[in-house]
Amino acid sequence: MDRVLGIDIGGTSIKVGLFSMEGTLEAVTKSPTGEIVSEAAFAIVTNGLKALLAENGGTPDEVVAVGLDVPGPVDDNGKVGMLANIELDPDGLQAAIKHAFPNANLAFVNDANAAALGELWQGTAKDAQSFVLIALGTGVGAGVVTGGKLVAGAFGAGGEIGHVTVNRAETESCGCGRKGCLEQYASAKGVVRIYKQECARLGIEPVKLDGPTDTLSVFEAYRAGDEAAKKAIAQMCDYLGYAMAQVSVVVDPAAYLIGGGVGGGFKLFAEALRTSYRSYCLSPSASTRILPASLGNDAAMYGCAFQALSERK
Amino acid sequence: MDRVLGIDIGGTSIKVGLFSMEGTLEAVTKSPTGEIVSEAAFAIVTNGLKALLAENGGTPDEVVAVGLDVPGPVDDNGKVGMLANIELDPDGLQAAIKHAFPNANLAFVNDANAAALGELWQGTAKDAQSFVLIALGTGVGAGVVTGGKLVAGAFGAGGEIGHVTVNRAETESCGCGRKGCLEQYASAKGVVRIYKQECARLGIEPVKLDGPTDTLSVFEAYRAGDEAAKKAIAQMCDYLGYAMAQVSVVVDPAAYLIGGGVGGGFKLFAEALRTSYRSYCLSPSASTRILPASLGNDAAMYGCAFQALSERK
Repeated sequence: MDRVLGIDIGGTSIKVGLFSMEGTLEAVTKSPTGEIVSEAAFAIVTNGLKALLAENGGTPDEVVAVGLDVPGPVDDNGKVGMLANIELDPDGLQAAIKHAFPNANLAFVNDANAAALGELWQGTAKDAQSFVLIALGTGVGAGVVTGGKLVAGAFGAGGEIGHVTVNRAETESCGCGRKGCLEQYASAKGVVRIYKQECARLGIEPVKLDGPTDTLSVFEAYRAGDEAAKKAIAQMCDYLGYAMAQVSVVVDPAAYLIGGGVGGGFKLFAEALRTSYRSYCLSPSASTRILPASLGNDAAMYGCAFQALSERK
Repeated sequence: MDRVLGIDIGGTSIKVGLFSMEGTLEAVTKSPTGEIVSEAAFAIVTNGLKALLAENGGTPDEVVAVGLDVPGPVDDNGKVGMLANIELDPDGLQAAIKHAFPNANLAFVNDANAAALGELWQGTAKDAQSFVLIALGTGVGAGVVTGGKLVAGAFGAGGEIGHVTVNRAETESCGCGRKGCLEQYASAKGVVRIYKQECARLGIEPVKLDGPTDTLSVFEAYRAGDEAAKKAIAQMCDYLGYAMAQVSVVVDPAAYLIGGGVGGGFKLFAEALRTSYRSYCLSPSASTRILPASLGNDAAMYGCAFQALSERK
């Protein structure tokens, strides 16, 4: 029976999903991400994949597609660019997987792009022709789909919507070296940063935060009526709606899906975000739908599997 | 012999091109744009098309595709939206053309999108997979091509790059009702507007201008060392490069093609534009090519013909 594997390579863990051809997730395993740069490390990965298959009554010959998503740029030709947060030799790992699964088509996909494809395969965007998934996580990633296909970009920077400039007056630098990027306000880090700034400005004691990306606590404070939390969420919605209006004059998607950790608070900020977007967008695009993503942290694992399957000759 | 027609419906004239299947332009006619809302008006158009064919040894049966480009939104499904500058009943004209050319596939395309497709078929972007054509004309239009396909948009606003917000501090309104759009600085009207503002600010007498869109005279003044003209062109390049950097984080094209009337001055401002773009773009996209378009005012006529031909089942 033909099978598909989706391998989500993150900064802290590798998660592998075993899928049917129709996109049913049959099994998942998770292991810590080590350095994946030697034959020994490649073997640990491929042995793990084979074990997962064996446990589920499968053989390596049955695997027709293996997708890998990585936290970094992958261009229109599937070439992996610089990976800042993980030690990975993509060519070496690709060769090892190809050797272990001789019948499989392999594909690398950027993580946010993979999440968009996951939503296209089995999530909110099932069978949609045009949408943009915006993953509000530690950073802000996005995946742009037009005509049912992912726009990876000539240099792998398609969907880098976290780096739309939303505030040219910003003085702090973004991780990309530029200033005033959406990511500085709408990522988990950004929301917490603005929350703390607002607390200082209003002379409020911040709620207890579990690290620099703890938006859950900011959302709780918001629900409890905390003024600084209200300001931070309002700021996020203002800049995010503004950035989406800029995206709409480029690709004019039918829908935006909001995912990622911050996206977990979607119900809390959905109306403010919709109002913000409509206040900034060009009039024809005022009816663009703004919806929550549905596959959570599994989206990228689904999506890279789907891409590898779709590209199969 | 199979033939293709491309009909460029502009605010002042209708231009028709007769093409071979391979994209060779065999003949062109041009007539003033009247109101195209009655059977009598439709007949004038279809009779003109038939006459053009007959003059070139063709018959209506040989026409396999007819493209029409219009100065307004056309969505992903080919549906024409509101046309502000012409009186046209698209459904009526479509029915009349279909009746006159029973073997033809028909397609409506937005004018800037058509220009992009024209460059893809027979111009600078021949066989390119991803590029953005920016037409700097009376307004600023654009056509976005990814994966070799046009991105028209769910609401026909794909490529409305003239409405990327580049200056949130602008006090004058754009034609779209919003403020600080690229079009307010980089269209022919915008360049002349900024030139006059700079003349006033610097206490310089403006050169003689032939109307509110006479960028040719501003370019001449620039060549003659006029300080206000230098400022206006610098401002245009600054905002245009900034807007292109925003576009690149969405679709990350391999190239930008600069067309339209203002684009005729490409050599004069190309280096300033490239420098501006590189100063604003996300680093992976720093090698995006910035090139002049090559088909001039015929680009849209080529492009709508190409679209009608491509869509043919």
